[in-house]
Amino acid sequence: MVSSEKEMAASCGVEWRINMPDGSSEILTPEKGLVGRVIFGIKCMVLGLVWKIWDFLKKAWDLAIDDPKKVIHCLKVGIALTVVSLFYYMRPLYEGVGRNAMWAVMTVVVVFESTVGATIYKSLNRVTGTFLAGALALGIHWIASQSGEKFEPIIMGASIFLLASATTFSRFIPSVKARFDYGALIFILTFSLVSVSGYRVEKLLTMAYHRLSTIIIGTSFCIFISMLVCPVWAGEKLHLLAAQNLDKLANSLQACVALYFNDDNDDMAIDHKNLQGYKCVLNSKATEDSMANFARWEPAHGRFNFQHPWRQYLKIGASIRRCACCVEALNTCLSSENQAPEHLKKQLSNICLRVGSSCSSATKELAMTLKTMKKSAKTEFSIEELRSSVKDLQKELKSLPQSLVNQLHTAKAQQSAENEQKERVSTSTAVSLVEIIPLASFASLLIEVSVRIEGIAFAVDELAKLADFKSAEDEKIKQIQPIKIQPTQQ
Amino acid sequence: MVSSEKEMAASCGVEWRINMPDGSSEILTPEKGLVGRVIFGIKCMVLGLVWKIWDFLKKAWDLAIDDPKKVIHCLKVGIALTVVSLFYYMRPLYEGVGRNAMWAVMTVVVVFESTVGATIYKSLNRVTGTFLAGALALGIHWIASQSGEKFEPIIMGASIFLLASATTFSRFIPSVKARFDYGALIFILTFSLVSVSGYRVEKLLTMAYHRLSTIIIGTSFCIFISMLVCPVWAGEKLHLLAAQNLDKLANSLQACVALYFNDDNDDMAIDHKNLQGYKCVLNSKATEDSMANFARWEPAHGRFNFQHPWRQYLKIGASIRRCACCVEALNTCLSSENQAPEHLKKQLSNICLRVGSSCSSATKELAMTLKTMKKSAKTEFSIEELRSSVKDLQKELKSLPQSLVNQLHTAKAQQSAENEQKERVSTSTAVSLVEIIPLASFASLLIEVSVRIEGIAFAVDELAKLADFKSAEDEKIKQIQPIKIQPTQQ
Repeated sequence: MVSSEKEMAASCGVEWRINMPDGSSEILTPEKGLVGRVIFGIKCMVLGLVWKIWDFLKKAWDLAIDDPKKVIHCLKVGIALTVVSLFYYMRPLYEGVGRNAMWAVMTVVVVFESTVGATIYKSLNRVTGTFLAGALALGIHWIASQSGEKFEPIIMGASIFLLASATTFSRFIPSVKARFDYGALIFILTFSLVSVSGYRVEKLLTMAYHRLSTIIIGTSFCIFISMLVCPVWAGEKLHLLAAQNLDKLANSLQACVALYFNDDNDDMAIDHKNLQGYKCVLNSKATEDSMANFARWEPAHGRFNFQHPWRQYLKIGASIRRCACCVEALNTCLSSENQAPEHLKKQLSNICLRVGSSCSSATKELAMTLKTMKKSAKTEFSIEELRSSVKDLQKELKSLPQSLVNQLHTAKAQQSAENEQKERVSTSTAVSLVEIIPLASFASLLIEVSVRIEGIAFAVDELAKLADFKSAEDEKIKQIQPIKIQPTQQ
Repeated sequence: MVSSEKEMAASCGVEWRINMPDGSSEILTPEKGLVGRVIFGIKCMVLGLVWKIWDFLKKAWDLAIDDPKKVIHCLKVGIALTVVSLFYYMRPLYEGVGRNAMWAVMTVVVVFESTVGATIYKSLNRVTGTFLAGALALGIHWIASQSGEKFEPIIMGASIFLLASATTFSRFIPSVKARFDYGALIFILTFSLVSVSGYRVEKLLTMAYHRLSTIIIGTSFCIFISMLVCPVWAGEKLHLLAAQNLDKLANSLQACVALYFNDDNDDMAIDHKNLQGYKCVLNSKATEDSMANFARWEPAHGRFNFQHPWRQYLKIGASIRRCACCVEALNTCLSSENQAPEHLKKQLSNICLRVGSSCSSATKELAMTLKTMKKSAKTEFSIEELRSSVKDLQKELKSLPQSLVNQLHTAKAQQSAENEQKERVSTSTAVSLVEIIPLASFASLLIEVSVRIEGIAFAVDELAKLADFKSAEDEKIKQIQPIKIQPTQQ
């Protein structure tokens, strides 16, 4: 899409081609004369605009197809807003809640986020911020009103200045920013609004009560809709993101090793999309952080308890990124100028492919552990298999020089036959040894990747302990037992 | 701070110790009896609370000392809010702008951000969103009012549902999210508020006019204060962040190489803080993205034009992170189990230290190019020096096996003297070759780092072209010339 846009941009001023639905195309050529040029210019503009809108709509459509949950969220917002508007349309409610119904509408617009956690976070922050600021503003307003007409504006102004500055500063403190950023904003907002209104409006208390009650109506409505109608949980998203990142890393790793050794058996693995998967992993920190922040506001849902250890996912994410960093270094070996010759690569090909595939399957097993939330003996087996394959690789690396020594001997034999200088022997060996370096560093990076996968395994294991994952085998036995018993019962 | 908190948490229930200002300490022991225990419990709680508040204040104080610009921002927000409140306090303005003055207050609270770019982004989005939504809502309101009392609520409800859903969806599209996220929110907000109010309030047009004018007053006030009083420019922050990241990377790299070869001359470089600098670089993507988004809203300021190529900083940032990824891999060589023996390390020590320091100085030169925004011949020299040192390292790597061959010959001589099997020769060589692998991979990672530094240099050079950096040498000549000319003129 972008490339075709560039083509169009490049061709602008040269020629404009319209592609007809039947496959033919028509070229727009600029007409001569002022009127002709103006018409051509307008045609150009309109077509450009149509193209841009078409492009935008196509992107939006792709996005909707790619993630239907986003569409559902939009419909939920639409429904929520329309329903809340009833509070204003319906006369009985109008008389009860009055003009302040606009606060309910405003609350729905501002508070309704795409995940349940974010909605609860904003709702609780909004209600608490409004309540605290309202109470404080009323208190200060009372003090100010007792101190005479001259001092009243001074006290109000000073209190606004001090509280606004202090609260704004608190938003820079990381622990406040993570949990109460929105609440602090609402605190400043409500405090200044109530202070300012308090100077004019009578029945301040009634207004404050109405405003708070409409906000509570709005927020609880948002929380219910977001939790009951196709809920999107931040915690679940975070959980799935970790599992997806592990899968991407596994595919990326396998593709990289297969491509390095030109492994034809593994055509499926060598896919450009798979190969570049680690890049998504490297850039996922911001999403993980915000999801973890929202997840802790969520009640128990699905397989997750209220006190699910969401922070541990950040540790898992960090260890996945550390591994992705190493896969990135591994990937550059593919495009490096210095490549080991094919005959050397062949010597390590089998064992490296084995290490690569056992790295990949261990990572996939870890992803499976996360997805199913069940500890499986398979994971331990795959880690053991990874360790043993790495040990074999290290052995092969040790035995690799032997073949080089054999080459040296062959070279020596040739040399003594030809009676040449000693110098030449060492040169021929040297070339072989320099040639080995790219392969050796590829292999040692692969070993480092395996070490980091063990780091991920450790973090996942910690999560399994903290969140009390069940053992997959125990469950299977439980499932099998009733089936075995049933026939005897019959 | 955290550790002492943990200590306290661990000791809670066992003993409470109060540290007096004179250095002595008093242990609180639980008294016997119910009353004693209750008093002890309350003491515990109060002390814990005091400790938490003290800790929070200390963190806030450290933050303020660390970045006084944040304090200035808070004072600016305080001043802006207090001044805007005058719009409401002062009677003539009250009569002009009326109750809608609260929209000015609300605008200041919501729109005032810590950087000029973010403030302008929010201001323009708020004004445009309010205007478009207001105009559309008035239009639909007019159509609805023409179609009879029955259809009016249906038309209003349907339009709210459709527009809210569509606009919410547009916020998921990356290009909209980056530029108009806040505007879309305000669009939904204003549209529903005007639609809902329109059903009850007469003089809708006057109200809309007043609301828009107060918002324009609020936003322009925010923009002026943020631009005129100690402005913090997002663009400048982005620019400095790139330079800082380069410096951190340079220090991290130098410390890593020095530590690997136990270089005692470079004690200054081996600093844990320096060594870990690359980690900040790896995590800077989110900040860079948001700064680049805000920077494009900013007018020309300082050394930056309006159309300064801010997007190029994202490319520079990406190339810096690619390099940091490689430095991370280099860093793990420090803690790896397989280490090359000291006598091998010594053979490459000098040249590797040279490559490390030339990598580091090239990176620092690039940082200097960014800081001064002047192209210097020094940068090219340092890149040339980097290339030549890398070539020398590659040569040394080639000549390194020669010494191993010499070792082999010595071993062979010993062996023929002792009449032992051929097997043993190859084993003794093999050990040396396996030992070389960690060193070889360190060296090839170092070479890869140098390649990526050239990538950064390329990105910085592109920026220099796009932003038309002046040459540092030309400016010096210009500065020197007038001094030379002056005496002859006199």
